[in-house]
Amino acid sequence: MNELPLIQHLIDGQLVAGGTRSVDVFNPATGQAEKRVLLADKHTVEQAIASAHAAYPAWRATPPLKRARVMSKLKTLLEDNAERLCALLTAEHGKVLSDSMGELQRGIENVEYASYAPELLKGEHSKNVGPSMDSWSEFQPLGVTAGITPFNFPVMVPLWMWPMAIACGNTFVLKPSERDPSSALLVAELALQAGLPPGVLNVVNGDKEAVDALLTDKRVQAISFVGSTPIAEYIYATGCAHGKRVQALGGAKNHAVVMPDADIANAVNALMGAAYGSCGERCMAIPLVVAVGDATADAVLAGLKAEIAKMKVGPGTDSANDMGPLVTKAHLDKVKGFVDQGVQEGATLVVDGRNVQVAGHESGYFMGACLFDHVKPGMKIYQEEIFGPVLGVVRVKTLQEGMDLINAHEYGNGTCIFTRDGEAARYFSDHILVGMVGVNVPLPVPVAYHSFGGWKRSLFGDLSAYGPDAVRFYTKRKTITQRWPSAGVREGAVFSFPTNR
Amino acid sequence: MNELPLIQHLIDGQLVAGGTRSVDVFNPATGQAEKRVLLADKHTVEQAIASAHAAYPAWRATPPLKRARVMSKLKTLLEDNAERLCALLTAEHGKVLSDSMGELQRGIENVEYASYAPELLKGEHSKNVGPSMDSWSEFQPLGVTAGITPFNFPVMVPLWMWPMAIACGNTFVLKPSERDPSSALLVAELALQAGLPPGVLNVVNGDKEAVDALLTDKRVQAISFVGSTPIAEYIYATGCAHGKRVQALGGAKNHAVVMPDADIANAVNALMGAAYGSCGERCMAIPLVVAVGDATADAVLAGLKAEIAKMKVGPGTDSANDMGPLVTKAHLDKVKGFVDQGVQEGATLVVDGRNVQVAGHESGYFMGACLFDHVKPGMKIYQEEIFGPVLGVVRVKTLQEGMDLINAHEYGNGTCIFTRDGEAARYFSDHILVGMVGVNVPLPVPVAYHSFGGWKRSLFGDLSAYGPDAVRFYTKRKTITQRWPSAGVREGAVFSFPTNR
Amino acid sequence: MNELPLIQHLIDGQLVAGGTRSVDVFNPATGQAEKRVLLADKHTVEQAIASAHAAYPAWRATPPLKRARVMSKLKTLLEDNAERLCALLTAEHGKVLSDSMGELQRGIENVEYASYAPELLKGEHSKNVGPSMDSWSEFQPLGVTAGITPFNFPVMVPLWMWPMAIACGNTFVLKPSERDPSSALLVAELALQAGLPPGVLNVVNGDKEAVDALLTDKRVQAISFVGSTPIAEYIYATGCAHGKRVQALGGAKNHAVVMPDADIANAVNALMGAAYGSCGERCMAIPLVVAVGDATADAVLAGLKAEIAKMKVGPGTDSANDMGPLVTKAHLDKVKGFVDQGVQEGATLVVDGRNVQVAGHESGYFMGACLFDHVKPGMKIYQEEIFGPVLGVVRVKTLQEGMDLINAHEYGNGTCIFTRDGEAARYFSDHILVGMVGVNVPLPVPVAYHSFGGWKRSLFGDLSAYGPDAVRFYTKRKTITQRWPSAGVREGAVFSFPTNR
Amino acid sequence: MNELPLIQHLIDGQLVAGGTRSVDVFNPATGQAEKRVLLADKHTVEQAIASAHAAYPAWRATPPLKRARVMSKLKTLLEDNAERLCALLTAEHGKVLSDSMGELQRGIENVEYASYAPELLKGEHSKNVGPSMDSWSEFQPLGVTAGITPFNFPVMVPLWMWPMAIACGNTFVLKPSERDPSSALLVAELALQAGLPPGVLNVVNGDKEAVDALLTDKRVQAISFVGSTPIAEYIYATGCAHGKRVQALGGAKNHAVVMPDADIANAVNALMGAAYGSCGERCMAIPLVVAVGDATADAVLAGLKAEIAKMKVGPGTDSANDMGPLVTKAHLDKVKGFVDQGVQEGATLVVDGRNVQVAGHESGYFMGACLFDHVKPGMKIYQEEIFGPVLGVVRVKTLQEGMDLINAHEYGNGTCIFTRDGEAARYFSDHILVGMVGVNVPLPVPVAYHSFGGWKRSLFGDLSAYGPDAVRFYTKRKTITQRWPSAGVREGAVFSFPTNR
Repeated sequence: MNELPLIQHLIDGQLVAGGTRSVDVFNPATGQAEKRVLLADKHTVEQAIASAHAAYPAWRATPPLKRARVMSKLKTLLEDNAERLCALLTAEHGKVLSDSMGELQRGIENVEYASYAPELLKGEHSKNVGPSMDSWSEFQPLGVTAGITPFNFPVMVPLWMWPMAIACGNTFVLKPSERDPSSALLVAELALQAGLPPGVLNVVNGDKEAVDALLTDKRVQAISFVGSTPIAEYIYATGCAHGKRVQALGGAKNHAVVMPDADIANAVNALMGAAYGSCGERCMAIPLVVAVGDATADAVLAGLKAEIAKMKVGPGTDSANDMGPLVTKAHLDKVKGFVDQGVQEGATLVVDGRNVQVAGHESGYFMGACLFDHVKPGMKIYQEEIFGPVLGVVRVKTLQEGMDLINAHEYGNGTCIFTRDGEAARYFSDHILVGMVGVNVPLPVPVAYHSFGGWKRSLFGDLSAYGPDAVRFYTKRKTITQRWPSAGVREGAVFSFPTNR
Repeated sequence: MNELPLIQHLIDGQLVAGGTRSVDVFNPATGQAEKRVLLADKHTVEQAIASAHAAYPAWRATPPLKRARVMSKLKTLLEDNAERLCALLTAEHGKVLSDSMGELQRGIENVEYASYAPELLKGEHSKNVGPSMDSWSEFQPLGVTAGITPFNFPVMVPLWMWPMAIACGNTFVLKPSERDPSSALLVAELALQAGLPPGVLNVVNGDKEAVDALLTDKRVQAISFVGSTPIAEYIYATGCAHGKRVQALGGAKNHAVVMPDADIANAVNALMGAAYGSCGERCMAIPLVVAVGDATADAVLAGLKAEIAKMKVGPGTDSANDMGPLVTKAHLDKVKGFVDQGVQEGATLVVDGRNVQVAGHESGYFMGACLFDHVKPGMKIYQEEIFGPVLGVVRVKTLQEGMDLINAHEYGNGTCIFTRDGEAARYFSDHILVGMVGVNVPLPVPVAYHSFGGWKRSLFGDLSAYGPDAVRFYTKRKTITQRWPSAGVREGAVFSFPTNR
Repeated sequence: MNELPLIQHLIDGQLVAGGTRSVDVFNPATGQAEKRVLLADKHTVEQAIASAHAAYPAWRATPPLKRARVMSKLKTLLEDNAERLCALLTAEHGKVLSDSMGELQRGIENVEYASYAPELLKGEHSKNVGPSMDSWSEFQPLGVTAGITPFNFPVMVPLWMWPMAIACGNTFVLKPSERDPSSALLVAELALQAGLPPGVLNVVNGDKEAVDALLTDKRVQAISFVGSTPIAEYIYATGCAHGKRVQALGGAKNHAVVMPDADIANAVNALMGAAYGSCGERCMAIPLVVAVGDATADAVLAGLKAEIAKMKVGPGTDSANDMGPLVTKAHLDKVKGFVDQGVQEGATLVVDGRNVQVAGHESGYFMGACLFDHVKPGMKIYQEEIFGPVLGVVRVKTLQEGMDLINAHEYGNGTCIFTRDGEAARYFSDHILVGMVGVNVPLPVPVAYHSFGGWKRSLFGDLSAYGPDAVRFYTKRKTITQRWPSAGVREGAVFSFPTNR
Repeated sequence: MNELPLIQHLIDGQLVAGGTRSVDVFNPATGQAEKRVLLADKHTVEQAIASAHAAYPAWRATPPLKRARVMSKLKTLLEDNAERLCALLTAEHGKVLSDSMGELQRGIENVEYASYAPELLKGEHSKNVGPSMDSWSEFQPLGVTAGITPFNFPVMVPLWMWPMAIACGNTFVLKPSERDPSSALLVAELALQAGLPPGVLNVVNGDKEAVDALLTDKRVQAISFVGSTPIAEYIYATGCAHGKRVQALGGAKNHAVVMPDADIANAVNALMGAAYGSCGERCMAIPLVVAVGDATADAVLAGLKAEIAKMKVGPGTDSANDMGPLVTKAHLDKVKGFVDQGVQEGATLVVDGRNVQVAGHESGYFMGACLFDHVKPGMKIYQEEIFGPVLGVVRVKTLQEGMDLINAHEYGNGTCIFTRDGEAARYFSDHILVGMVGVNVPLPVPVAYHSFGGWKRSLFGDLSAYGPDAVRFYTKRKTITQRWPSAGVREGAVFSFPTNR
């Protein structure tokens, strides 16, 4: 064990050790621990915060255009290092390489948007709010900001946060997931290479001890979090109780409604990726199909079964595979447990992927796609976020019945509808209590120049992640109101013709 | 006691009783209890919330232009009822009538801004985020929202909140200060008259029991608060712990810097109003002057003394008076106690207004203007918010020394600088850790089309009050991503020529 | 003739005579001349321009909020005087009273939008475009601006122009149509009553002599025009050749596409109003239906015939009537001539309204609804703007065929599609070369907080009418870049401690 | 002569010949013709337009993000090829290499801003403009657009135009100056390399024949021009008469005001670069100093004389030089003629640079810095744009007198004021009739994320160059208003449960 490579922290531009505890980092495709990651203690986190605090004044004073150009440069470096980054990502998370590439691409788009900072930071200027009095707003940085990110998008979710925070003039401390920490660390090193001064971005690996140090330190002005709802609530309550601004994104249970007039083949294709891509370990995955009418349900199920039969499960490094392993052994067991429970609760298990074995990778955390019919709102597999390759079909008679279900669910992250009908789409979009809505788009993740945010217990805070809302989240408003006394140099009373004095 | 008029709640469009407790409402100019106000119990607050909840769906569906027009109409009604409103305001708060009129005018400007809702609620539309795929954002209302407002601007602060909340499509529960509740209630009645459907705006009078009911009820989506910092922190922590979005505005200790090149006469005039207007009971009042150079300090003090000598203290209903009574006996005692302590701590009391008596109003809560020289950062009168007619002069040698003081203070609400020099003004505005900055403007309260917010412990939350930030605070973002399946009616595959089927 | 009331000009806040020529103003429902209107000569126009020029500096210096409030006040006055205004409008134009009321309402919405000026005039402020250097934009007024408006919306189209021009700080000279000049004049008088200072808004009645005076006077900075395309081209070329900014809106020939899946009853209802409302004398009227498929065409024609049979033609003052007279005898003859020609060219005249008589109003300029089937692109009734109650149905086989027709037409003002299909609507909206598109909305006139503008030969200029574009049209950008020299009062080199000098 | 390299056109992605006429391209530092450039005839221009027209549909349909990425890529290529580009620029224009580099950098910033297109092209979306009716705006490209650019910024001014035009979805035909055409051509080749499809950007070299072909061709939708005022007027009038949108930027005569309280050393340094940089061949150069007070004038003149004495004139390729040659022999003669005339008119020629010789470059078009005192408004050197290294000092008694001069001048491009006084700066900025204002900034060229535009006869059109205004100039607004018929698939009336039919 001692011989496993040790993943450190990045503080003040240097890779440094810190903390006495460490945990294994596994390759989920082999089940082998291949690295260890140090877990920062409070002191180490405070070092990172101190570095960010010290770097702040100079970075704040750097013109936005220059800050933005570091982001442009980083974008190019990320493209140049894509292969290396995605290999790391797949080795620790398990997702197939093409999926890693897709994740990276989404992350790059956030870096790209942060590079628009000079435009995004414009304040509002009002001439003559009163006679000869003007007023304008400036959006100034906050100081030290922090992000706590989940295992499922180890490259992308950090890039939702710090590029914009930093482009706005803040400095940043990132605590990525300890399960797959390497890719975020590599991205941070590329950012230094792109010209970020030491201390502007720091990465600490760790667990709850590190999180709590960030939540309670007075120098940290804002916290962005993405993870599960119970932790999101804890982060929001604790961070706010310490006077910070917090945005905490939690869990999801996204429903896809399929209408009788939908293009079924199209919908089935879309659902396959949305349900099983990345093993369903996405907060914008679709684990539930709401089929309007039994005929629709039957057609969708038939389509899904046929597609699932063609799916290949195996290590993410093999580009022939559609689905890699789950992230950990514990999570694999939990997901299988959900499937067991679904069977017990009376849902019909149409496709059972629980016992799938991948030859040569018997210790990998693999399972196959599972498909349930007759899922009902009372069931646990309906209510809880499974975060695995398990798709359930709920049968309803009308769109309204389906919408009532969605609106009653505790989560409101994403949803979609498949239909050709303009009225159905508009009614659905308008009345559904969900923050991100797709019309014939299964994973309606907003593009980087819009913002990401769920409703209900999927997001705590008032501003969404990335996009325009992130600019507002990572800045504070300063309003200046100005008028000038008369009888100055213009009127000649005091200063003019100084040689005459 | 039974014979005093009883101030009730406004729920579902009706004035109703609710709660078993009540407290006196005093006229601070006479010291007499003239009314009593009912204190809502939890059940009463829940009734108000239920009314707001029931009114929400129809109000949300009302087009923004129609909602905005209620605000236009209300604006006219407020102008028409200005005299009556200000009489109520002065009778319960004590401020002089012209000041009440100024407060009302500022409130009307917020109603006016809310009437721009169709413009303010525009979302962002992106064509072709991908091939034939579009995405746009909508800013939808939250549902039931609530506001808790302080005694010092009983008309204006509620108007910072609910007109915009309601123009955005929310419904609202207002809990005004129980010390001077009548004017907010009258404004709410005018809003009904302007066309607001019953239940869209509810007013509950009360104290901590009512506040806690609002903070913990699941139906309340957002809380706006203005008051003191300890309560603001409590509101922020408690509201957030219950998953709500919260903006909580707290205390202030606003410094005015006077530079050696300032127009001193102009500065003195400005400071008189800023320090003693409304007895200093304003979160944007100026209780501290930072004079750069002893010559500046001496000149400012001389000017202030001369002006204070001309000031008239007396009941707010007499238009000859400059300053009315403080709001309560307890507050009067507290403010005098601060002055006593300042003397003890070694500040020089240049003008002592502690024993001012107003003939014929001996029981009124009057005191005169107090002016200290040689106030030092270690003193309590420097550190704490006095909220009374007490102005202190701090002497510094340089602007930087003055700015360091301001930046070290726990509050960061407002500040101003008096100078002719562009560079000094720009340096000050840029580097001061205060949210609202005036350049030769003593009370830099942003106009209604900008937003109001302090920094540091003067505001908890990420969005400021009123103006553009309020639009974002009172709405949640929904992002829709849409594409349409081909082979529909356009290509003729399915529906065209239906008569041939 | 001498006894007819004489309509004058409004210059510098006064009704004044000017010019030696005059023409009759007829009541089209009776065919009687009831008033005469003076036609301004060059000198009179120059007087109006001079008045606007003199009023400009003070108006420009009036804070935007104050300018905006005149618009709020005017809105209320327009609502209060609606009946009187609409009576004038109907008496001179002929349209039925409910239609006049609709026109006025649309005009009021433009006044309302102009009252948002403080928000709309915000410039962009950039901190630190370089080290300690800031830059911001201001949108300053142009000076004297002018508008030339058509007979068909005598109240609304002037209100598209001058309220925003004036709210932006300009002064204005309006030349309304000489055929129905009274209502615009009354609105201008109400604006004075609302608080507009004399000279800020001037109205000159006149013909080409007045137009040319406006187009060539150096003091006039910008011209807005709405009328026919040949005149729009003349205005655009002439105004631009004199160095002015010009927006010139011309003719239209709006097609409504009806798809096989449309709700036909709904479409027919919508088309009735769009084709025959205000006798088709609207640039957003629908004179052409493009029916996709013969079955669709047959169903639409059947529906239209049935509805036309129920229509009532008669004086606009009688609220039982659906359609009033055309505006002049000459125009009536021209429209009938188009119908004659359509018959000659081979279109099928399904309903013939040419000989409709209104009992008791035999000299009124009435005709009934005409409906053609089998209209073809080569026909004159297809190509030219008729501006009368004449609707033609064009039969096509596919949506693409219909869109090709529309895209080949010289005009591109408005268009609409009736369908349930999201894909058809999106494809149509995207690819149609028309500026204003309705989906199941027959007259897609943008609301006042969006902008109005056609494409192709329907609009000359880069900015559309009213809404956000009007703000940009009526202002010029000023960009200020500012930094301050050091060694000023802040550092103490020059001014501090002045008593020591 | 035949052996000189021949500069061709870039049409449809290929370098092609076209036209029978050609002219010499000189190296102004040597006076030698080193290349010849082909002058496109009408037919060649039409080929370029046809190529742009053919490339349009596919480019328009390319998502904005992809278009923007070509700009990001181009930015990198421009940085990588900076040396080669600047060598070309200096060889044909003459300016010193560091100045070429500065010009390129400014051009790159415009490319950078164009890469923000996804943000800049967002339209406005309004939910519920009426019940269940929505409306939104799209900013669609125009089609084929064109630019005509001057000799003095052969790299930068083209980059003001086509990157944004193309990022907005248009295709483009550029006609650069025939005096120094090579660098613009190279930039266009780099753009192809960055991924621009053939035909999206075409470059035609030429003279008036080419210009007229662009101005009159129906397929060209918009013209951007930068050059002298008489040509700008011709372009504006002719382009508008052909129905196009046109923005035409003309001449300038920028005044710098120096106040008595200015930091004189700072002002002198700033003026040296502003007056003599690039030989004054800039529309934002400062050829006139307005000194307030004789003491100020004397101090400024003394400073300028001392600095001029240190200036080095010589070939731009030698980095020791401050000023290179003028662009052509004819222009050199013209500038010297202006100086002669100034002497004749009675201005005092304080420094005479007319006879400066550069050893080894006796045929180069060199002259030295000239400095006049006592320039008066009536003189030709005051009124006309010299575009050479000639600076004149005008003496006034007050700021107001200086401002009256500036406001009376026919041009209003740029201006600046040197002062420490906030009030003087604000009064000047507000009341000066000039589009770009500097406060202690001598050449207030707005940064790329603001827009460039003069007032009065310095710009014809309503929208400024580059920045936000360019987005609006290169797009046309389309407004879509949408509602959906009920009784569709949602309510089940027509399509639901299709298997039951």
